[in-house]
Amino acid sequence: MIENLKHVCIYGMGLMGTSLAYSLKNHAKFKGKISGIVRSEKSQKWIKDYHLADEVYLSTDSLVKPNVMDSDLLIIGLPVLDTIDLIHQLVDWKYDGLVTDMCSTRYVLEEQIRSLEKIYPLRFIGAHPMCGSEVSGPEGFVKDLYENKLCIIIDRLKEEDLQDRNKNDLEKVIAFWKEIGMHIFLLDAQMHDYIVSYLSHAPHILSSILATIIGRKDVIIKKNLESTVPILGGGLKDMIRIAGSNPKMWYDIIETNKKNILSALKDYQEELNHIIDVLSNNNDIKAFWFDWQNQSKKYRDSIYGNPKE
Amino acid sequence: MIENLKHVCIYGMGLMGTSLAYSLKNHAKFKGKISGIVRSEKSQKWIKDYHLADEVYLSTDSLVKPNVMDSDLLIIGLPVLDTIDLIHQLVDWKYDGLVTDMCSTRYVLEEQIRSLEKIYPLRFIGAHPMCGSEVSGPEGFVKDLYENKLCIIIDRLKEEDLQDRNKNDLEKVIAFWKEIGMHIFLLDAQMHDYIVSYLSHAPHILSSILATIIGRKDVIIKKNLESTVPILGGGLKDMIRIAGSNPKMWYDIIETNKKNILSALKDYQEELNHIIDVLSNNNDIKAFWFDWQNQSKKYRDSIYGNPKE
Repeated sequence: MIENLKHVCIYGMGLMGTSLAYSLKNHAKFKGKISGIVRSEKSQKWIKDYHLADEVYLSTDSLVKPNVMDSDLLIIGLPVLDTIDLIHQLVDWKYDGLVTDMCSTRYVLEEQIRSLEKIYPLRFIGAHPMCGSEVSGPEGFVKDLYENKLCIIIDRLKEEDLQDRNKNDLEKVIAFWKEIGMHIFLLDAQMHDYIVSYLSHAPHILSSILATIIGRKDVIIKKNLESTVPILGGGLKDMIRIAGSNPKMWYDIIETNKKNILSALKDYQEELNHIIDVLSNNNDIKAFWFDWQNQSKKYRDSIYGNPKE
Repeated sequence: MIENLKHVCIYGMGLMGTSLAYSLKNHAKFKGKISGIVRSEKSQKWIKDYHLADEVYLSTDSLVKPNVMDSDLLIIGLPVLDTIDLIHQLVDWKYDGLVTDMCSTRYVLEEQIRSLEKIYPLRFIGAHPMCGSEVSGPEGFVKDLYENKLCIIIDRLKEEDLQDRNKNDLEKVIAFWKEIGMHIFLLDAQMHDYIVSYLSHAPHILSSILATIIGRKDVIIKKNLESTVPILGGGLKDMIRIAGSNPKMWYDIIETNKKNILSALKDYQEELNHIIDVLSNNNDIKAFWFDWQNQSKKYRDSIYGNPKE
């Protein structure tokens, strides 16, 4: 699919956008033009210096519109609320290229897309490549960020709906992400948001809470600084890695998936309350503990494990 | 220090014990005898097959006592309650070699050591090498498990106490762990248990809670299995890695550090309740969210970061 493209425009070139540009050129061997749109001159310079795009425009540049209109594939690499704003812009411009994106919440966005189709039928096929990290900005770019990772493609709004995307465009976007190196899984927007609130959104918040309660303990931070190397094992290191990821991106995620995230956080709250009760009140916690840990390990393995991996 | 040893006995050869045997031979170039004590024939066979120790005894073997008594350094690689039992045994045997261990809770253990000194002054210098993982058993052994990691050495019971270990033995045990490849940090047992409850013990439980609430959602597990690769990003993968670690080891940790662990879990509970309140009630969460995430990132960096690393 990629070999048939002449000009790919990446709107928003942070970690995800720059890494995608790199994969396009180096993994998918794309020979056409890559243009990028960024907000800051610093990012513009960085991307030019590293030759990650052939042309880089500031989002305020009057050349943005003609550049976008010239592209045959537009990939949006913006936080979800900004993506929705851009979608309105594209409808206004009557952009006729193929559009895909990389947002982590889908329902609100996909609902907008569908309601705007009465005005102009944008050729949009939503995607969520699950490979972001706690790093933001173009400087964080990773050469093989997308390789062998999962890309969820949204083919309907709710599970009970029929697939409502243009079949041809859907196939093209699936082929695009495959050629970038990803594995594809189709989901409806509603199910996506529910699943991802448990598998990504709530865990991000829980990671931030963990960093916050430790960070507030002055004596721990003091001792940590006194030590030759930080007093943290691999477990904590991993658990707080994603703490305090890009606040704007996460604010958008929370605003657009609040109900699901609250449900996941409340499940977590309930289990935490239960564990605190057990440890506080039960004199003989041994039987409970062995059962609970063993079950937790089974759950962990069932989330991790997949014979197809 | 290691070059002066003739016979090192490792009592308990799981992940930590086998990896230590490997480091002793390969990193510290120890030329003397390594003997190991294990509980199961399976472990015994595995360790013999991989030549990780020169002799391996089952803990029920009558040769265990003469073997231990022959060693000039005994390293205990058992869960903390079992370590306490063994300490009593060693006092009973009047073991005169140097003793160190690898337990993750210290106060109860170090208090026992000190109270037993009236009966027999065991040459014990407690250590907590912070490099365990979710893997247990000798099969999990890692060649460079200890390299450049932190080893906390306990030199007193409470912060206000004077250093009460035999200076010569303390220096020897510090030298031992250094020669294994570790960085050393001295702490009192009380402070150790407080810090580690926040930096290791509570995070382990929080990881298990996360795996548990996700694992109970049948629809998520079902969709996860349908997907070509599991629907989990790197964030969750890292956050649940340590879920359901060895239940016996963790039961011992909880029993011996319950007060501190409960305090850490309650801090976490309080912050979680606060976040749920904010998301549930506040219509304009933007300002709060940016502040909270930015602060969380600063905290994260202060826990991670250490210019000396």
